[in-house]
Order: sequence, then C-alpha cells, then structure tokens
Amino acid sequence: MKRTLGVCYYPEHWPESQWPEDARRMAELGLTWVRIGEFAWSMLEPAPGDYNWDWLDRAIDVLTEAGLSVVLGTPSATPPRWMLDRFPDMLAWDAEGRPRAFGSRRHYDFAHAGYRNAAAAMAGRMAARYGNRVAAWQTDNEYGCHDTVRSWSPVARDAFRNWLADKYGTIQALNEAWGNIFWSMTYSSFDQIDLPNLTVTEPNPAHALAFRRFASDMVVTWNAAQVEAIRAHSNAPISHNYMGRVTEFDHYATGRQMEIATWDSYPLGFLLDRVPGGDTAAYLRQGDPDFQAFHHDLYRACGNGRWWIMEQQPGPVNWAPWNPAPLPGMVRLWSWEAFAHGAEAVCWFRWRQFPQGQEQQHAGLLRRDSTEASGFAEAAQVAAELRDAPDVVPAQAPVALIFDYVSQWAWEVQPQGAGFDHFALCLDLYRALRSLGLSVDILSPDTACLDRYALTLVPGMLTLSEPLRTAIETAKGLVLTGPRTDLKTAELGIAMPIGPNLPGLEATSLMEETFPPDSPRGLENGGGIGLWLEHLESDAQVIERTIDGTAVLLRAGKRLHLAGWPNKAAARRIMGALAREVGLRVTFLPEGLRVRDTATERFVFNYASHPSEYDGHTVEPAGVLRLSRPF
Amino acid sequence: MKRTLGVCYYPEHWPESQWPEDARRMAELGLTWVRIGEFAWSMLEPAPGDYNWDWLDRAIDVLTEAGLSVVLGTPSATPPRWMLDRFPDMLAWDAEGRPRAFGSRRHYDFAHAGYRNAAAAMAGRMAARYGNRVAAWQTDNEYGCHDTVRSWSPVARDAFRNWLADKYGTIQALNEAWGNIFWSMTYSSFDQIDLPNLTVTEPNPAHALAFRRFASDMVVTWNAAQVEAIRAHSNAPISHNYMGRVTEFDHYATGRQMEIATWDSYPLGFLLDRVPGGDTAAYLRQGDPDFQAFHHDLYRACGNGRWWIMEQQPGPVNWAPWNPAPLPGMVRLWSWEAFAHGAEAVCWFRWRQFPQGQEQQHAGLLRRDSTEASGFAEAAQVAAELRDAPDVVPAQAPVALIFDYVSQWAWEVQPQGAGFDHFALCLDLYRALRSLGLSVDILSPDTACLDRYALTLVPGMLTLSEPLRTAIETAKGLVLTGPRTDLKTAELGIAMPIGPNLPGLEATSLMEETFPPDSPRGLENGGGIGLWLEHLESDAQVIERTIDGTAVLLRAGKRLHLAGWPNKAAARRIMGALAREVGLRVTFLPEGLRVRDTATERFVFNYASHPSEYDGHTVEPAGVLRLSRPF
Amino acid sequence: MKRTLGVCYYPEHWPESQWPEDARRMAELGLTWVRIGEFAWSMLEPAPGDYNWDWLDRAIDVLTEAGLSVVLGTPSATPPRWMLDRFPDMLAWDAEGRPRAFGSRRHYDFAHAGYRNAAAAMAGRMAARYGNRVAAWQTDNEYGCHDTVRSWSPVARDAFRNWLADKYGTIQALNEAWGNIFWSMTYSSFDQIDLPNLTVTEPNPAHALAFRRFASDMVVTWNAAQVEAIRAHSNAPISHNYMGRVTEFDHYATGRQMEIATWDSYPLGFLLDRVPGGDTAAYLRQGDPDFQAFHHDLYRACGNGRWWIMEQQPGPVNWAPWNPAPLPGMVRLWSWEAFAHGAEAVCWFRWRQFPQGQEQQHAGLLRRDSTEASGFAEAAQVAAELRDAPDVVPAQAPVALIFDYVSQWAWEVQPQGAGFDHFALCLDLYRALRSLGLSVDILSPDTACLDRYALTLVPGMLTLSEPLRTAIETAKGLVLTGPRTDLKTAELGIAMPIGPNLPGLEATSLMEETFPPDSPRGLENGGGIGLWLEHLESDAQVIERTIDGTAVLLRAGKRLHLAGWPNKAAARRIMGALAREVGLRVTFLPEGLRVRDTATERFVFNYASHPSEYDGHTVEPAGVLRLSRPF
Repeated sequence: MKRTLGVCYYPEHWPESQWPEDARRMAELGLTWVRIGEFAWSMLEPAPGDYNWDWLDRAIDVLTEAGLSVVLGTPSATPPRWMLDRFPDMLAWDAEGRPRAFGSRRHYDFAHAGYRNAAAAMAGRMAARYGNRVAAWQTDNEYGCHDTVRSWSPVARDAFRNWLADKYGTIQALNEAWGNIFWSMTYSSFDQIDLPNLTVTEPNPAHALAFRRFASDMVVTWNAAQVEAIRAHSNAPISHNYMGRVTEFDHYATGRQMEIATWDSYPLGFLLDRVPGGDTAAYLRQGDPDFQAFHHDLYRACGNGRWWIMEQQPGPVNWAPWNPAPLPGMVRLWSWEAFAHGAEAVCWFRWRQFPQGQEQQHAGLLRRDSTEASGFAEAAQVAAELRDAPDVVPAQAPVALIFDYVSQWAWEVQPQGAGFDHFALCLDLYRALRSLGLSVDILSPDTACLDRYALTLVPGMLTLSEPLRTAIETAKGLVLTGPRTDLKTAELGIAMPIGPNLPGLEATSLMEETFPPDSPRGLENGGGIGLWLEHLESDAQVIERTIDGTAVLLRAGKRLHLAGWPNKAAARRIMGALAREVGLRVTFLPEGLRVRDTATERFVFNYASHPSEYDGHTVEPAGVLRLSRPF
Repeated sequence: MKRTLGVCYYPEHWPESQWPEDARRMAELGLTWVRIGEFAWSMLEPAPGDYNWDWLDRAIDVLTEAGLSVVLGTPSATPPRWMLDRFPDMLAWDAEGRPRAFGSRRHYDFAHAGYRNAAAAMAGRMAARYGNRVAAWQTDNEYGCHDTVRSWSPVARDAFRNWLADKYGTIQALNEAWGNIFWSMTYSSFDQIDLPNLTVTEPNPAHALAFRRFASDMVVTWNAAQVEAIRAHSNAPISHNYMGRVTEFDHYATGRQMEIATWDSYPLGFLLDRVPGGDTAAYLRQGDPDFQAFHHDLYRACGNGRWWIMEQQPGPVNWAPWNPAPLPGMVRLWSWEAFAHGAEAVCWFRWRQFPQGQEQQHAGLLRRDSTEASGFAEAAQVAAELRDAPDVVPAQAPVALIFDYVSQWAWEVQPQGAGFDHFALCLDLYRALRSLGLSVDILSPDTACLDRYALTLVPGMLTLSEPLRTAIETAKGLVLTGPRTDLKTAELGIAMPIGPNLPGLEATSLMEETFPPDSPRGLENGGGIGLWLEHLESDAQVIERTIDGTAVLLRAGKRLHLAGWPNKAAARRIMGALAREVGLRVTFLPEGLRVRDTATERFVFNYASHPSEYDGHTVEPAGVLRLSRPF
Repeated sequence: MKRTLGVCYYPEHWPESQWPEDARRMAELGLTWVRIGEFAWSMLEPAPGDYNWDWLDRAIDVLTEAGLSVVLGTPSATPPRWMLDRFPDMLAWDAEGRPRAFGSRRHYDFAHAGYRNAAAAMAGRMAARYGNRVAAWQTDNEYGCHDTVRSWSPVARDAFRNWLADKYGTIQALNEAWGNIFWSMTYSSFDQIDLPNLTVTEPNPAHALAFRRFASDMVVTWNAAQVEAIRAHSNAPISHNYMGRVTEFDHYATGRQMEIATWDSYPLGFLLDRVPGGDTAAYLRQGDPDFQAFHHDLYRACGNGRWWIMEQQPGPVNWAPWNPAPLPGMVRLWSWEAFAHGAEAVCWFRWRQFPQGQEQQHAGLLRRDSTEASGFAEAAQVAAELRDAPDVVPAQAPVALIFDYVSQWAWEVQPQGAGFDHFALCLDLYRALRSLGLSVDILSPDTACLDRYALTLVPGMLTLSEPLRTAIETAKGLVLTGPRTDLKTAELGIAMPIGPNLPGLEATSLMEETFPPDSPRGLENGGGIGLWLEHLESDAQVIERTIDGTAVLLRAGKRLHLAGWPNKAAARRIMGALAREVGLRVTFLPEGLRVRDTATERFVFNYASHPSEYDGHTVEPAGVLRLSRPF
C-alpha cells in the first residue's frame, strides 16, 4: 500500500482568491489529503439556523479540482458564541466548581444532551451536503485536550446519577459495590450522589472510578451520535484525531465506532509537556525516541489496524513551555517512523501560519507570507521518497504489550505511591523492549488471543477481562504479568481471594508497599525496584529477588509475574533475557537509536544529535536507514 | 501498672457470623481493648429517628463475652447523608470559599449549633444504652484531621461575630484591641466583620489570631457537648483520639474535659507527610526518631498524665505520598516506646484490612482474608513481653519544654520569616535534648510550678501567662526562654515596654530580623543561627555571640534567653552545657538511638537501620533495650 | 539643586500630645518633608458625610509650625468599611472569580465609577481645605500593589465592554482586529464578550492584551479624576508613589498627569520577592545592585525628570519571605544612590514603628517606644552630608534604554517560552551596561529623538511607535533593536510584511524558537543565547553567530539588531564593544560595584559585603565614593 501525505487547511482564514494557488501548491508538493472545516461552525452557521454553505462548497470545489482529497471535520469542538444563549448550561465545569468560559475552544460538557444533539445534527447536515464529495471524515477535534473529558457541572452530575441508576439498578447495589458502609457513606437515593470533587478528604475510590467510567462513556456516546449522523449520508471512512497522552476516555471504544484512528503528533511539544521520564536536554529538538512510537502502536490498535497522523508538527509550536525548532531532518524522520509503524497517511498541521489568535506562533509548512517554512523542504523530500521507494508492508510484531484505559483511571484514583501511573509503567517497559531493538504491538485489554506473540507484557492491570485471562492461559509464548496486575476488583476493591490469581501462576500478595523514587530496592542480579513492590506468597519459582530477599520475579512454565516496578537497568536485563529465550534477536541499541520492522524491511531511526552506528552503517542525526530483510 | 493492648474493630463491616471468631482471636492475641463504633452512624440510625441498636448490642455482647473491654466511639465524624437534608448549612467551607462536600468524612462545621446538638444527642443516646457496658469512651474521631478545625462558612462567620461580641463587648474595644485605625480598618458594628480570608493582602494579624482562637473554642465547645451528654449516663472514662501535628485547636483545653488523652500514631505516614526536618531517606521504614516521642510527651500533658495510643500503625498505610512497610521490629519498638513514655495502652488500627473504601490499602493485624499480616507476630511478641516483663513505672523527666497552641497560631499568622513555626522550633530543641540522652516532659503554657525541673525551655512563646511568669521567676532550676518569647501582646501586637520582659532577665529587643535557611549566622563557639535573630539590649551577661558580635545567649543567674533559632550543632552544644551544669548525665547518642527513663529503667530504642552501641550493649535495628537503674 | 529628606508619618496613630515632640525631632534630624494622610479616611469621615477635619487641621499646624512641609495623600487606597454598604459591588474580583474582601487595603475596583467619583470628591474636599497649606500631593497609594490593577468583576466586565465599543466601534471591527475567525470565536455583540479568565485553554492573545490595555486605562482614568479634583483647589505639585516592578499599568501615562513621580524603594524586600536574576545570597542585606537604579532611571522618565523616593526602607520590613536587617551603611548608600540618579527628595517609611496591624514588624526611624532605630543614625548622617557636600547636578546619560509597559503585557500574554518577560530582558541589558560602568537613561516608547545618545537599546518591543521609528531612523548614535522587537502588530498578531521591519535594517524572521534556560546556544565569540532566538533573513552584515551558524547580531551602518536573548557573558561582551566604538569609557566593574555619573561627579557605590577597588580608591562595603570630573 502506497503511503500518502496531507495537510490541514483553513480556507475560511484566507481570501478566496488565494485558494487556487494554495491548492495548486499542495498538489505540487505531493500531498493527497487536505483536512478542513473542523473549527468553522461560526462561518457555517453565523446565527442560529442561518446556514452559509457556499464558501465551503467553493473551497471543496477548488481543492478537489486540484486533485486533493478532502477530509472534512465536524465543527463541534468550537461551538459559536450564540450556542451559549441556546444552551446556557452547556459549559463544562472544572474540578474547582467553576464553569469553563467561552473564549477558546472545547467549551462544552460531553454530558449535555442538548448540545450533543445539536452537534450531531450539524454533522448530519454536513454529511447530507458533502457525503459524496469528501474522502474521509473527522469527528470533532482532539477529544480530551485541555483536560476536557471530565466536567464537574450540574449537568454532568445529573447525567452521572442516571448512569449510576442504569448501572447499579438499586441504590443498595451501589452501596454494596462501593463499600459505602465505610465511613457511613451509605446513600438512600441516587439523587444524593454528587460528583467526587471538593470532598473533605479523598472520595471513595469506587465513586471516583465510577465517575471516570461515566466520563469516558459520555465521550463514547458523544462520538457515536456524530458517527451515526454521518453514516446516514456518507460512506466515507470516519476518524477522530486523538491526542498524545490523553487517557481520560477509552479510545478502544471510540475506535470500534470508526474505520480509522488518527492522532496529532507534536514530538517537541510533548517532550517538554507530558512525556514521563523524558530526557529533555538530550532530545529537545528531536522529541522523545519512544513516545511517538508508543502512540503509533497504541492507535494502530485503536484503529483496528488502520491509522493516520492527522496533525504532524512541521516546526516550532506555540503551546509547550518552550518551543524549539526541530533538528533538521526530524520532520522527515517523524514521517517515516509513522509509515514504518503502519500509518496510511501523514498530514502536517498546518498549511500556512495564521497571524492571529492562540496559535499564531505555531509554524506551518508556509509562513504567513506564503514563503516556504523550514518544514516544507522536508515534506517535499518525504513526498519524493514515497514516490521512489518501495512500499511499506506492515507486519505483526513479535512482542505485545497490553495498554488499558481503565487501569490508567484506577491508578490515578488510587496511586498508593505518588507517581504510580499505568501509562508511565507501560512506557517504561516499552522503552526497555525498544532499547533492545524489538518491535512491539500494543493490544487492548479485551484481546482474546496471544498465540502469535512470542512474548506478551500485561503490566499494572486493574483486572483481567475474561477473554484476556483465557488468552494468557492458552498463550504459546511467554506472558509476563505485573507489577500490580490482578490485585483488584472492577470496583477498585481488593480482590478475594487475594490476587494475583493468574492463570497458571497462583500467588497471593501478602502486602503491597510503595516507596519514593530516590529509595529503590536493589536486585541481586543488578538494577533495582522503585515505587511499587508487592510481597508475594507462591509456589512458583523465584527468578529474581531483592538484595534483602523479597521475591520480585516469579515463574511457572511460560507464565511470569513481576512483583515490582523495575528501573531501567532491571527492565532491560529482564526483558532481554526473556526475548533471547524466545529466540528474538536482541540488540543493545545506543541511546537515541530505534528500529521498527516491517514485513520486508528494518527501519532504523536516529533520535540522537550525534551519528550512531548500526550493523556497520552510520546513521546521521535525524537519519533514517532502511534495511531489507533478511537482516 | 500493667500496660495493655487493644485494637480498632468495625463489626459493621463483617458478617455477624465472623464476630465470635474475631473476638476469640483478639483475646488469644492478648488484647484487652477493642474500640468500635466511631464511624457507624448510618448503621445506628439509617434514617432520621430510625434507630438500629440491635447489631451493636450483639457486637458488644460477643466482644465482652470474649473477655474484651469495649471502647465506644461516638459517630459524629461521619454524619449520614440524610443529616445534610436536616442541616443543609452544616458543611464546613474551605478557605477558598467553597463548601466541603459529602463523600468522605469530617464534613461538618464545628460552629454549627444544630449539628453539634444532634451529635451530642446521639452521644447521649449511646451513653444511655451502653453507659454501663463499655469500659471507655471516645468522642468523635481525630478532630482537625484534613484541616477541619477552621471553616470559612456563613455559619462560622455568624458564630465568630457572636464570639467577638462576647469577648470584646463593644466594637470600640475590638477596634482598639486590633489596632484597626491602621489602614482605616475600623468597624462600627460586629456584623461588619468577615472571616479573615480572601482579603486583598494579608488581614490584620489580630483579626486572624482571633479567628484561630474562635475556631479552637468551637472544637472545645463541641467536645464539651458530647462529654456532658455521656457523663449524664456513664462513669466510664472519656477520651478523644488526637492526631499527629494537628495544632489548630487547644488540646490542653479539651484535655481538661476528659480523663484520658489518646492519639493515633502513624510513624511512617507522618515521616513522609508532616515531620519538619525529617530525614526521609534514613528513616523511611522506621519513622522519625523524635516525632512519636514528642507527641507521647505532649499528649501525656494534655491527658494530665493519663494517655493511650488509640491507633498504632501495624503495616503500610494508604494516605502518605508513599507507603512503605515498617522495618521488621518497628511495630514492637513503637509499642514499647509508647509504654516507656507512660502509655497505659496501645491499640492497633485496625483488626482486619477492609477491602473497599478509602482505606482499603491500609494494613491491619489481619489481611482481608483473615490471615495474619506482618504486624500480627510483633503484636503477639509485645503481648508476651508485657506478660513476662516487669511493669513500667513512669517518672518525671528532669527537663521540661513548654508547648503552646496559641503561639503556634500566632506564628502561623505572622511568621515574619518563612518557616517560623512554634512546633518546628520546639521539635528542634526537643531533638537536641533527646540526642543528648535526656528525657523530657512537655508542659502547658499555664504551668504554675517548675520546681521539679533542673532545666526548662520556654521557646517561641507569644506571651507568658501569669502562672508561668511566676513559675519562671521562682524556678529553682535553669530556665531558658526564647527565641521570640515574650515580645508580643495577646492580640499579636508588639509588647510595651518592648520585650522580652522576663522575670529576672530584663532585655529589650532593638530589632528582629529573619533570613533564609541557607544564609545562617555563625556563632563564635560553633554552630549557627538560622531564620530568626532578635537584637537585644540588656545588662545581662552575654554567653554566646554571632561571629559579627550580636548577642545570642544572655544569662542572669539561673535565667537564660536565647535570641535566635539555633541550628542542630548550636542547639546540641548549648543544651549539653546547660544539662551538664545542672548535673544531668549527657550522652551524645549516635544517630537514631534514643532513650527514655522511667522510675526503674532506662529504655533504649534504635531507630537506625544498622546496629548501634549503647553502654557496651549492641542494639539491633528496631531493637529495644531495657536497663535497670542505676545506670 | 539642594536635595532634601523626609519621612512618612501617621499622626492619627499617636496621641495628639506626642505630635509636637515628633515634629521637633523630625526637624532636628534635618527633614524637610512629612507625608501624611494617605490611609486616614475612616478618621476623616468616620461615617458617611460625617467629616472630621479638626485633627488633621491640628496635625498640619503642628508639623508646619515645626518647619516641615506637608505632603498630603488622598486616602482612597483604604476606603472605610461603610463604603461597601454604599457600593456593594466596589470590590475587585480575583482571576479565580471571587470578590477580594475588606480587611486589608486596596479593596476596590478601578473600573467602579461610583467609588472613583467618591474618591475624587474626597480628594477635592481635602484640596479645598488644605490646598494652600500643603507643599505637595500624593494620589492614593501604590497603585497596583497586591496585584490590584486587573479586576475580574462584573463591574470590570461591563466597563470593558464599553471600552471595547469605544475602541473598535463595531463588533465586526473587533472580530477582525482580534482574528476571531480563529476557533469560531466571532462575536455578534459587545455584550457577549467576557473577561479573558477561566477559559478552557488560553484566551485569544488579542483579547487578553485588550484587557491589559483597558485595565491600565482604568488606572489612568482613576488618577486623572483625583488630579483634576485637586487641581481645582491647589497649585501644589501632585505625585503618586509607584511601586517596584509593578508594571500592570502605563506609568508614563499617569506620569504625564502629574508634576512629580515618586516611588517606594524597599531593596531588601524586593530582592527576596521580585528581582529577576537576583543573587539573594550575595546581596541579602544590601539589595540587588541594579534593581533600585533601574527604577530610579525609569521613574525619572515617568516624572519627566522630576522624581522622589517617597518611601525608603530604614530597617527590616515585614512583607518579604524573609526580612533581614540592612548591612550597616546601606540606608545611607541607598539615599545617595537615589540622589546621584537625580532624586529631589528621599523620604523614609516610617517615622515610628506602629505596634499593631499588618506592618507592626516594619521598622521605622524610631522604635515604637520612640527610641532611635538602627536607620536613624544613617538618616542623620545623610542629612549632615547634604548640608555640607556640594549639590548634585544631574546630567544626561550617554546610553539609553527603551522600557515599554505595553510590551510587558504583550509578552506576559504570549511569552512563547516560559520566562520571556520584557522587564527581565531590559534589566538583563541594563545590568550588562552598568557592569561596564555606564550610566543609563530609560526612555518611553514614544521617544521622538535619540540624538543625544551615543547608544540606544530597544529590546523586546511589541511594536515601534511612529515617533520612535523616526527617532531610530535619524539617530546619530548606535541603535540596537531586539531581541523580539517589531515582529508584531499592536493587536498582538504577526506583522505583515514579516518583521523586524527596522529603519535602515531590513530583515525577515523566518522562524522564532524558544528553549529552556538550561539549554543555551553557544556563540562563536563566547557567551550564549538563552530562551529566545529569531532566525533572520537579511542583507545586513552578520556580526555574531551561534556555533551552529545562526545569525545573532546584524548590522547595517549604525543600526544593529540582536536576534536572541544574550546571557551575561554575551551581553557584557557585545555592550562593551559597542560602547567602546562610540568612545565611552568602559570599566569592567567588580561584582557589586556600581557607578552613576552626574554633570560634575562620578558616584561609586559598593553593594558587595567586602571592600572593592575603584581607580585606586578602596570602597568599603556599603561605601559611597564621590569623584569629581574629570575622571
């Protein structure tokens, strides 16, 4: 399959006279896709019911006439100011109990049925008009960006009460499920239940987790409404552009509704803003060597194999604490890395820098005066390479890692030790695997078969779904669970009998302790355990121990369980041994060098700011090396 | 007197069928006490007026039949959800101006007369029913935990206005007492006075201190209501379980209402959460070597000699930033340390880990599956040792330290230098004394006689009460005042004539300065002064000076005044010299080693994670050594 | 011109019987000025309409009879409590959406017309009564102190809407000026516009900057009302006492309304509280060596040449994180430094320490018992020196620096890299110039002629005014613009054609990047660039480059442009080379030594805590050296 390129464009920002030239240059650059429309509601419906489609008709004409395929976004992330007059209670509230005001974007509450319906109706209108003219759809924009999944409004509270009534049936069932006998928190009616904010001390973790599930469900329901409205009029594939490290809703669930998952990749902004364990000094102008790849692999799972980069950073952005320029070559590297991980398309954000508003300092492929910005030449190089080079043929990876949104919420609710975070734990293990030269697939917690994987990691899982439990039981490869996997119930209580109750590896956690990152426990074989350690009683074989004798790695046949959070050295050592055992080629990669294997090639990427050696090849900073199989 | 053991138990959390076996095991373990009931309101009165005593009748039957003595807690710390319908304005408000919501505990305003009366009435009902069956009472639970002493609600505001009118009589008197002529802050009516939060810049310190006194009084009044209600029906001793480093109300005042003071000791949680100057790396699994002892000595004073540990940490807890496991032996050590300081009883919290709710990760003596958790064996060891070893015979210490809640509030209101805190100052001096092998009594600011003490410290006192002034004047031993003692009025103004106006040591503070902790002033004799330095003019002898010549330690006969906050080296040197002068045996203890003398023995405790030597004995980590007098 | 001294005094705080003795001692000390009245509203009008002038009449009698000249302050910074009954909505609101309560000071909203008129009327009444008796006026007190310029109240919102309607005329014009098409932020009415707080993510920078301009205008309007009311009755000069590093309103604009600018100089408090790049360990007891001088030079510009110190720190203050005592000699040094920079008068704050209220720990010249405090003797020394020494004859400096309040707001709204701050940038360059022994004039952004300056710096300017653009074009000396000068429009959009479009130095910024302070870019010639770097395309000569080749300093004739924020070494090297080129004497001063040249003398000040050498003279710590021209 030939990989393609695209760009995000806002015809409404520019004089109509400029559109044809813009379209011509896009096509000339080698772009296939142009995404438009996702913030244009106030242009499409300047006043309630006063629709203004003409300009968009003409924009789509111009773009398609230039040979571009249009991805059309629904504009619900930026409801016009008049929408607040229609729905005065549509604003989300922050956790401090204040409405989040108009004047930027995403100023709506996912639980507000009135605005949800209005937004779906707008999507339907667009689909009715453009359903046959556009090549793909995007719903809304970056769900959850700016911490917008959870709202603490009266609207959300009422919807939460209904959701609870649906889920639990009776208030007695809820009281029991949550253990409300504790601290006399018993309710006699669903109408007594508030949102779990502003309590005197922490709320019941079951209460907090229920609210996290509810909030995720509101996003899923919201997206469903738009998807349904579009489907009624269009056969074009539907997608949403997810964000990096936004984990407040279940992307697997929204992913099941749509054909394609896309995400917005800003490697430099993310490094300074949200990468756990990121080395900001070493990778300031390159981005974290694993963070993008992790999301590529995650959203490939969410998209059931089909995924894009919908927004790719082409130069400095505006929103991170500092906003450096990419090292020359990185705009190209990021693109090829996405393709190597299976992206069908990479689109840059944005075509031309807009000189006003919040993102005026965000680079585009063009400067605001339409001259070529620094990323343009690299985009052109990628386009040329795509034309000339062989197709990318994706392949399954030999190693799998389960990532679970519910576990992310659970440990945020109840970290027990500051910093216990499912995402960070998964990324740490992913880093270890990648530093050994291994390609990884990320899988959903409902995965029912692991047979094709030589090694599967199941870290930090609140619970194991029945399909996954069966998959672990029957897996032909090695499966490593833990730390903190299978100790809890779905209601964030302690499992009984005490876990982990793993298929083929029975154990009991006698005690779980956490400790500060600067006080790790050393392992006999090197490296150490930080933050989390569960003390296990088990008949299984003990493979690793702390220096003071606590079992850290248990084994029974092909099942292993890790009792603590390994530091870098320990993780690399343990993962390396397991990978070698199952016959995988293990390479201790130099800092910043990363590989990804396809069916026919090994791609080598150098994130370091100095040249590195790989198998006799020198890879320059920001360099991309393609090696054909066998390697 | 034979010291005893106990445990906290929640029969309402477990099937009734499990109670007899639980009771049997408690008795078998050697426990005397079982505390119950303090969070059970929603079980005792599920709906307004619908009382349900039967289960508690039976629980008390089962426990007492097993030979246990019941401590019954009043359940006012967790009002049921329906109580909010009865008193919609009963919630406390935080300093940001928001009600603190239902969904955890302590969600009430101490100033709310309606709920205060309802809580007292509930206490009365319990006393009427169980007054002859229980061995002791506990009022409420952990007053002040989660910053709940001060409330910034309209209810609190109105009560504050009444309190001010009572205290000052006329608004003119208040204006003058507070100096409201400053910045035109004059009031013409008590109804104009708001709570001192959300002002443009800091409020008048006199206003803020008055609010602190009021808030403390509300706790005292609250407790009085319950004590009175219980007394009407029961002769059993009454107690409250105080917290570690909760200083927002005057514990001496509540202590005067009851027979026994108890406190809840969580050494590991406290170390990571609230110990000023704590060495978290060295004592992660042991707790601070002085923090518990300080509270033992403080609450002994608040209990007028009678005190317990009502909740003792038996394993990892759930609420500190990190929650490690106690070093083996520490659960025993903490117990013996409490006994050595005069505790009548030590009760563990809790019997069995509860698998739901906020504290599900809090260890008990049993795991949730009723197997013995790590603390169980140490509890059993202590029980056996209590049976076999000689009684602990408390004795007065040779050194006294005055701790004053009002001074704590005063310096929080007006630190003048960041970090000036009465508790931290007292703990620093207490550490110095203890590092020299000295036992210390903590005394109230109303102490009227110091004759039995060889050395008394009176640090950081807003004012000196008349009894204490007389006691200092007539003391036969050495008395060291300061730093920052006797410079102010009770209204937090500057005293006139300018202080310190100490009995027998006249001085005038020409200037007070504060400086950052990283810029100390060196002393001629070694060590230094940090944070606070008052420049004194006096005819007294100058014993210590800074290198640049400022007098730091004044002396007139047996009266000394310290003008600055000494660092560790200076405090140890100065305290050591004074202790030797009065004939006390001074031992420079190694890090982590601490002693406490009784009438017949010296107890030696090793908080370090390595063995230490004491007088030819090796004390293992977590080791306890008992040496008979003479030593 | 003979420089004079004064003091701030609060007769209302002391018994009337004490006034004559106070006045006598002030005169005896050599003071000329006594400032009174600025917080006395509740004494002057205890109840609405109930005026009480008698005490003030008598106070002025006593003071003037002693030979003192009275500076009378209007009392609007502390409206009495009853004013809130008259104007319940007069309180400012904080950015979190809460009213800022009564109980300290500055509890009013600048946009509240009712209180503005009441305050002006009060000023008018005072002027009518005392217009012929006072020597000077002060309006209000420390505008902007405690972050009081911006209010987020409904009153402010309504006034903002009116201000916007006045400024833009039509909502269409506003939408276009702000670029509201971005993110569908288009308004259809001015009444839809809220204040730019509590938005979901950042508000439109144009919106935020408009609010900054509006808030500044409210202060200017407020001050105008009082000035006008006073002018109607008095010919005495009018001033306001500005604060250190309060930049939220345009001091040049208020300065144009009045005869004299004054400011309140607290070197030790400022060092620990608000000096960017301050070395707190080295200058704890001296204050920052450049911060005071910067404000002297800035407020000289705001006062159109006439300026005073209205409040000078005489000892420890009460409001910084820590409050040390000045090093002996500094009270004198600060005074002479002010005179060397052209101050007409230096007044200490305050005469006598007041023993109650928020500032009770703030030193005065006298202690509260009327004994002389540590600053008194130094004040007397300055008075004696003023009597005996030659007059100070101010002279224009050879180097100019433009400081611009609007640019301060712009970069606070849109720093693009954390820490980008106009004030900090200007202070960094000012430090570099001063470390070379250069005297500097600070100029307003409307400066129309630079002919008399050998070197002018124009750093970090949002836009260049037409007068300044012309001045740069025609300047005879060197002019250095940048970094970040002339890249934007007045609406905080990107300028078109892309800037910097400098007179005589055409360039285009291809890209602007920011990076963390710990990742600077090294320069070929030494030193480095931190935080900000604009990549320029230009035909101008490249004088400096980064090691990786980016042009950093451009030159075309006498025009230079700096593309990045230089660190200390780079700034000193570049400034030194330019100064030498224009024939200025450059001296690399030792740390802490600073000079200021007058028409006849060079003043040398030693801020260091050790002696320093200057031109063969030893300058003691806190020493002041006067060298006659030529030097």
